[in-house]
Amino acid sequence: MGTEFDLIAMIQDGTQVPRADVSVGMGDDGAVVRVPPSQELVVALDTMVEGVHFLPGTAPAALGWKALAVNLSDLAAMGAAPAWALLALTLRRADAAFVQELAAGFAQLAREYQVALVGGDTTSGPLSISVAVHGLVPAGAALLRSGARVGDVVLVTGTLGDGVAGLYALRDPPRDTPERAALRRQLVERLERPVPRVAAGIALRGLASACIDVSDGLLGDLGHICAASGVGAELDATLLPRSRALRELHGESESLEFALTGGDNYELCFTVAPEHLQQALTDLGRVGCGVAWIGRIVAGSGVRVRDGHGGWLTPGTRSWEHFA
Amino acid sequence: MGTEFDLIAMIQDGTQVPRADVSVGMGDDGAVVRVPPSQELVVALDTMVEGVHFLPGTAPAALGWKALAVNLSDLAAMGAAPAWALLALTLRRADAAFVQELAAGFAQLAREYQVALVGGDTTSGPLSISVAVHGLVPAGAALLRSGARVGDVVLVTGTLGDGVAGLYALRDPPRDTPERAALRRQLVERLERPVPRVAAGIALRGLASACIDVSDGLLGDLGHICAASGVGAELDATLLPRSRALRELHGESESLEFALTGGDNYELCFTVAPEHLQQALTDLGRVGCGVAWIGRIVAGSGVRVRDGHGGWLTPGTRSWEHFA
Repeated sequence: MGTEFDLIAMIQDGTQVPRADVSVGMGDDGAVVRVPPSQELVVALDTMVEGVHFLPGTAPAALGWKALAVNLSDLAAMGAAPAWALLALTLRRADAAFVQELAAGFAQLAREYQVALVGGDTTSGPLSISVAVHGLVPAGAALLRSGARVGDVVLVTGTLGDGVAGLYALRDPPRDTPERAALRRQLVERLERPVPRVAAGIALRGLASACIDVSDGLLGDLGHICAASGVGAELDATLLPRSRALRELHGESESLEFALTGGDNYELCFTVAPEHLQQALTDLGRVGCGVAWIGRIVAGSGVRVRDGHGGWLTPGTRSWEHFA
Repeated sequence: MGTEFDLIAMIQDGTQVPRADVSVGMGDDGAVVRVPPSQELVVALDTMVEGVHFLPGTAPAALGWKALAVNLSDLAAMGAAPAWALLALTLRRADAAFVQELAAGFAQLAREYQVALVGGDTTSGPLSISVAVHGLVPAGAALLRSGARVGDVVLVTGTLGDGVAGLYALRDPPRDTPERAALRRQLVERLERPVPRVAAGIALRGLASACIDVSDGLLGDLGHICAASGVGAELDATLLPRSRALRELHGESESLEFALTGGDNYELCFTVAPEHLQQALTDLGRVGCGVAWIGRIVAGSGVRVRDGHGGWLTPGTRSWEHFA
């Protein structure tokens, strides 16, 4: 133990996923992979920094899982099937146990989606993790932000607001009943072990007119769809899917705020033309993905939210911006 | 100014390189690109951390250049033609001038090699830069570390040892004559603005039996070739190419040490079977790349260095290891 090369070998050992399309995996200056002629390549790169994207003391296995998960979520939002990943790990000192646990968390998710880790790099410095992912999508079938049209329905997978609630649960754990403590753990799990909506993204190929993952908060992310598509959106607050844990621990008003603006959620927000709606719901049901109809695309720009009493909500913030 | 999205837009504006194979560039959850059927994809990811890979106070334009250059050097070592890059920038605060200069340095090199920046991410935190690069190589033609055979010649492009000498020049600038100060600036330029040997790597397709870039130091990197190929290597110290600046500022003994073990050099070290040697030298000459014959592949393992007096050198360190 003790050199850059040993750390990479440890990560490699923990994350072996065999893929026939990898010509040269980890251990050379670059990896060599093959893209089938009928497919386009989707690429994304995300960095997680200690104290910004995760709290100091977060379990390394959770970091490994999440660093890959947030990137797979980007692929999911494009409708791409995950294929290969590269991992750049910066840590203050060569800590074998830390790296082994991080690799194990990464590998657990990588195996689930058959993602081969084909490149890696460890350096010393303040703790951060960069992951580059590569996915495949039939040529022309990638889900973009720019295809939403007036009259399309706005939908979202799973439940909203749990990620930011998980952060509260971690930061400020009160003495609590066992039942509330269990709900709290559910929210922390949602924060630390987000499940990328890969199967849902693939199911939505040819059906969703636009798609994005809710990493920065629903209002901000749906706002990106509206801006890219040249449209507006109207949401109905009463339709926003919220978990029982979120409602019970944070109440109606705060859970709504979290659902609208909380980042770190990794559900898919997407739009579907009315004629494709039935098929989209059927296909998502087939892959076991919960989905909620939350609004509609309208002419204009920006996102407005009905409050359920005939009025409009005016939330305080619009997105989770790192430099806001 | 002030949000994550503005920073990305600034980087985007500074680095527009149009490529017909980019279906969807920056601004969605991922980029969508096309790989021609006859080509394989080469991918690499490298991170540079302040205080580890560069000194605090380094000009942001130099950082932008170098973050891309070290990755293009990995592509060069694989014989790949650069195509696309993604940039993840972590900086303590949203500093428009800093980002603009960094983007300009990145763009200067990106334009030279027609690299399209297709994805980006900015986060707050201790200064670091991760770049993922993608290159293309005809199927089966990638240069690997594993193909060196007994009897092959060992060669290296350019000159060795300048990178680490540049670091000394920066760290400890003495009062000096104008002529020596000019030599010093040459070495700093080599450290801060390394020129990736892209044309040389492409010229060596089908000719080099193994190839690596000298990022960690010649002995360590040639050692990787030996380990991957199951062979040994013998170098001749008198043949190691050293710049006039390096020799004049550091003398015979130290310049030799730097040439053998100094990292941050980004030349290509490669092996060629004797029957391909003439063609390799001709093709490298055609792309204007200087090259030196420095040794030979032998049976056994590890790298040994003749001292020019019939004996063997025993250097103190074998590689530049971040956690050594």
